[in-house]
Amino acid sequence: MGSKCSCCACHLCLFEYQTPVMLVISSKRLGFLFRLIELLIIAYVVVYVCWYQRAYQDQDSVISSVSTKVKGNILTNSSVEGVHVWDVSEYVIPPQGENSFFVLTNMIVTPGQTQSSCPEIPSEFTNCKSDSDCKEGFNEIRGNGVQTGRCVQYSDTIKTCEVMSWCPLENDTIIPKPALLSAAEDFTVLIKNNIQYPKFSFRKRNILHHINSTYLKNCTFNRKTDPHCPIFRLGDIVTEAGEDFSVIALKGGIIGIFIDWSCNLDFSEHFCIPKYSFSRLDNKNPENNVAPGNNFRYAKYYKNNESIETRTLIKGFGIRFDVMVFGKAGKFHIVPTIVNLGATLAFLSLVTAVCDWFMLTCMKDRDYAKHKFIHPDKKGDGVPLSSMESTSYGTP
Amino acid sequence: MGSKCSCCACHLCLFEYQTPVMLVISSKRLGFLFRLIELLIIAYVVVYVCWYQRAYQDQDSVISSVSTKVKGNILTNSSVEGVHVWDVSEYVIPPQGENSFFVLTNMIVTPGQTQSSCPEIPSEFTNCKSDSDCKEGFNEIRGNGVQTGRCVQYSDTIKTCEVMSWCPLENDTIIPKPALLSAAEDFTVLIKNNIQYPKFSFRKRNILHHINSTYLKNCTFNRKTDPHCPIFRLGDIVTEAGEDFSVIALKGGIIGIFIDWSCNLDFSEHFCIPKYSFSRLDNKNPENNVAPGNNFRYAKYYKNNESIETRTLIKGFGIRFDVMVFGKAGKFHIVPTIVNLGATLAFLSLVTAVCDWFMLTCMKDRDYAKHKFIHPDKKGDGVPLSSMESTSYGTP
Amino acid sequence: MGSKCSCCACHLCLFEYQTPVMLVISSKRLGFLFRLIELLIIAYVVVYVCWYQRAYQDQDSVISSVSTKVKGNILTNSSVEGVHVWDVSEYVIPPQGENSFFVLTNMIVTPGQTQSSCPEIPSEFTNCKSDSDCKEGFNEIRGNGVQTGRCVQYSDTIKTCEVMSWCPLENDTIIPKPALLSAAEDFTVLIKNNIQYPKFSFRKRNILHHINSTYLKNCTFNRKTDPHCPIFRLGDIVTEAGEDFSVIALKGGIIGIFIDWSCNLDFSEHFCIPKYSFSRLDNKNPENNVAPGNNFRYAKYYKNNESIETRTLIKGFGIRFDVMVFGKAGKFHIVPTIVNLGATLAFLSLVTAVCDWFMLTCMKDRDYAKHKFIHPDKKGDGVPLSSMESTSYGTP
Repeated sequence: MGSKCSCCACHLCLFEYQTPVMLVISSKRLGFLFRLIELLIIAYVVVYVCWYQRAYQDQDSVISSVSTKVKGNILTNSSVEGVHVWDVSEYVIPPQGENSFFVLTNMIVTPGQTQSSCPEIPSEFTNCKSDSDCKEGFNEIRGNGVQTGRCVQYSDTIKTCEVMSWCPLENDTIIPKPALLSAAEDFTVLIKNNIQYPKFSFRKRNILHHINSTYLKNCTFNRKTDPHCPIFRLGDIVTEAGEDFSVIALKGGIIGIFIDWSCNLDFSEHFCIPKYSFSRLDNKNPENNVAPGNNFRYAKYYKNNESIETRTLIKGFGIRFDVMVFGKAGKFHIVPTIVNLGATLAFLSLVTAVCDWFMLTCMKDRDYAKHKFIHPDKKGDGVPLSSMESTSYGTP
Repeated sequence: MGSKCSCCACHLCLFEYQTPVMLVISSKRLGFLFRLIELLIIAYVVVYVCWYQRAYQDQDSVISSVSTKVKGNILTNSSVEGVHVWDVSEYVIPPQGENSFFVLTNMIVTPGQTQSSCPEIPSEFTNCKSDSDCKEGFNEIRGNGVQTGRCVQYSDTIKTCEVMSWCPLENDTIIPKPALLSAAEDFTVLIKNNIQYPKFSFRKRNILHHINSTYLKNCTFNRKTDPHCPIFRLGDIVTEAGEDFSVIALKGGIIGIFIDWSCNLDFSEHFCIPKYSFSRLDNKNPENNVAPGNNFRYAKYYKNNESIETRTLIKGFGIRFDVMVFGKAGKFHIVPTIVNLGATLAFLSLVTAVCDWFMLTCMKDRDYAKHKFIHPDKKGDGVPLSSMESTSYGTP
Repeated sequence: MGSKCSCCACHLCLFEYQTPVMLVISSKRLGFLFRLIELLIIAYVVVYVCWYQRAYQDQDSVISSVSTKVKGNILTNSSVEGVHVWDVSEYVIPPQGENSFFVLTNMIVTPGQTQSSCPEIPSEFTNCKSDSDCKEGFNEIRGNGVQTGRCVQYSDTIKTCEVMSWCPLENDTIIPKPALLSAAEDFTVLIKNNIQYPKFSFRKRNILHHINSTYLKNCTFNRKTDPHCPIFRLGDIVTEAGEDFSVIALKGGIIGIFIDWSCNLDFSEHFCIPKYSFSRLDNKNPENNVAPGNNFRYAKYYKNNESIETRTLIKGFGIRFDVMVFGKAGKFHIVPTIVNLGATLAFLSLVTAVCDWFMLTCMKDRDYAKHKFIHPDKKGDGVPLSSMESTSYGTP
């Protein structure tokens, strides 16, 4: 029988079917345990993996393009500049950003700077008593220029080292309070955002289909009444981020405008709509803060009648709004489905292991082990099962 | 026998091997069904998971650095500015972008603005009949300045509220047509792109090894003849994106330059080459469009002889090119291989379930159930299998 | 018995438990092989999947906001500009970047340009002998303006085509060496970086809790002594990137500042600290390099007494520092745990397959096949196992 069999292994391979022999035990306790664990695993798969985690979906990340347009004017009346109306091209710097825009809210203006020499701003590094305290050519990293080696009067009582630099130097110890452009709170910004999920050939923009031009001309975003209007009042953004505009306007800050495009593309695309949220990104905590807020210096250059270059230096404080578009779209796909179901199926094999252990340990009185385990080799060579089997149907 | 066995469980654990007892059924139908389903699953794993999805690979996302350099000059002859030659430092704004560059294509120039008062641009919000229609200090968000409270002549027939602002105001109702700098179509841009896949310590750039300097000085990207040339004609980019340059130049737009670095690093790095594609990112649909196109205002500031600041305001329309580098590299890794193969193996256990069901349901005449299932407890306590087994080889 | 059974299938389903009948083979070789392979797989799971790959964790990608502040002044003494002190608002262009900042290190200044006509810079495209070599209105893409059609003296020996452009033209063939602002090596930059892992509601910044203001005012990043100081000396960054500052300052380049926030959030957040690394992103290889380095042109515009616009054109070479924040945080989550464990469990079923093959092939002398495989159909219809079973306990 064995030799006959081996010569046609290939043939057998195709026309034979192997299935495990199962021991069926009629036990309410065991049966209940078995089905309970099975049910738990299946429920977990259905509820958690499929419904909650949507593990059956293939995912794609969003590709986005953003453009922004700020609107508004401010009239200021400062001692240095007089009456001045600020428009977009002055307070949005740079005029065009890719995913972020900066709105000037406060500033220290130093007009009429030229390349010359002047006394340093007093500090522990720059105060002096005589020329010997200053060093020609010395370039203090926290200073404002290159020292000439002379010690000169800064004010009636204070002497500081003279430096070559753009003079007069900016004195940024006193920040205007309230912020000069605190009325920027009422500015509005239109955010145009086009997204795509290339894997699913899906494109959409944040100006939804049902929105018409008349509505767009007059609406302002409001989480309750106008949740789909793409025009935001700066003050509302800052308030939703949990900040006070008049406070953040003083020293500046960074606010994140998050646009969440998470979508389940197994449903209609009408349900795929952007969700806006706002939060402050930089640290407002005053402790441990070097250079708190958000500011930078920029200058406007002029040439006067004698062709000498002068400049107006501006230390601008303001709010940088970073538009962050994120989101994942999911759509049914066979590979993640199989990977996740397969992994869960593998766990079903654990059920048998648990129940076997329960059966062999807790139901010892029935001695199921004798039925489950067959020991052909036990006690050597009595009447092996094989011979019995041979007897039974091996040799009819 | 039982007691003897329990005392050496550990010992047995190590030197015993458990394998399921299998029922072998010689049935062409069953065997064929069994092998067929097995074959389908294995074919699926090989073809789809391994070959198509490359699920055996570990993946990494690209890290990229981009720099761009536009070339070209344009001569314009407008009534406001006279003959003017535009070079890169004038029409690329800002002069350096990280992953995007903006090319000016059209503009409305308002020279000689100073801080003063002038009549508003006529609109439903600004037209007036007498001073009582205007409100001193009122700051209309869609207006161009802060009202002085007077109603003045804008033209012979129209009166509008006077505002304090940068005057004269810009009138942007008429956009130059054709676009002033529509010849920007012939500009070229060199895109230098260095990428790395840190997980695989892989670095490459879009100027490939086999490209020499002579070729680079004269080539222009062409999908058929020069697919690896990193110098692009702006007109070609816009055409490939499915747009008409003369149309997009009027009001501006956003064009995406996609560089796809998807690579299979199991092969030689010579096969890892960038693929370029282009598409319009903003919405060109004229309906429902507030602020269509892409424009922003910027100004050049001067001081005249009397040290009064004047400025030239420019509302610039143009095309923003966003360079988007993406791609995933895959390389064989043991963990995803095992996860995916394991999940598929788990599915093979389903085959037995299917075939068992077929065997027990459709082949009832052979009553395989009797062979497959052993019921030690059935009908109570006749001669249990255990005792039979004991007889057979338990007690020789 | 069969009919009785079928009527209560549902009932049986709940109160029956099926477990495979196992053949237990007492063989040291087989047992050892079995346990060895099992051990290997379990060891692999524990060590590699769990410990090394942390496959039991759910992952989230970092969301980051960066702001930078450069400090330092440089005194230059060039023949064109005379003594000049450069401050931040002059050498950082644009004044504010989102994730990158550019520091000017070298430049070619062309002052006093006006819109007029002048001879082209000599090159193979622009040299001429007579007016017939030049073409009015011709706009060479590699040229500097629009040709007027005249051939004029560029120098005593060379004649070139005249062009309309911003004249005099910039001659960028000679780059200042050493770099004008090579002292930028001593500048410092403060990098403020706030990150969040939204999935885990985790926020942190690169100024760590234990750092106080006094330390921050005086520290400079040093991998050994000050690894958590967020103030970096530009020279140190470039050196760590493996470059020579005086060389890269000549023609510019792009340096990546990588901040790695990879964290295991199963541990305390105190262990979640940023790791800094630096590397050059552009290609420094001089061969095959068109436009090596990193430069761009920008201009400062003036109006002279006669209201004619003049400009100072600057071709600025410099280093762009791209701050790249990356990292993944992991935290225990049940789904990836189950997927990965499940997949590995599935592999345990392979052990049986391997051992079975070993048993049936290499231990042929014991003929375990007889025990493992039961052939109910073999040799037709002797005494089938079923009948035997019926005898044994089917009919007591």
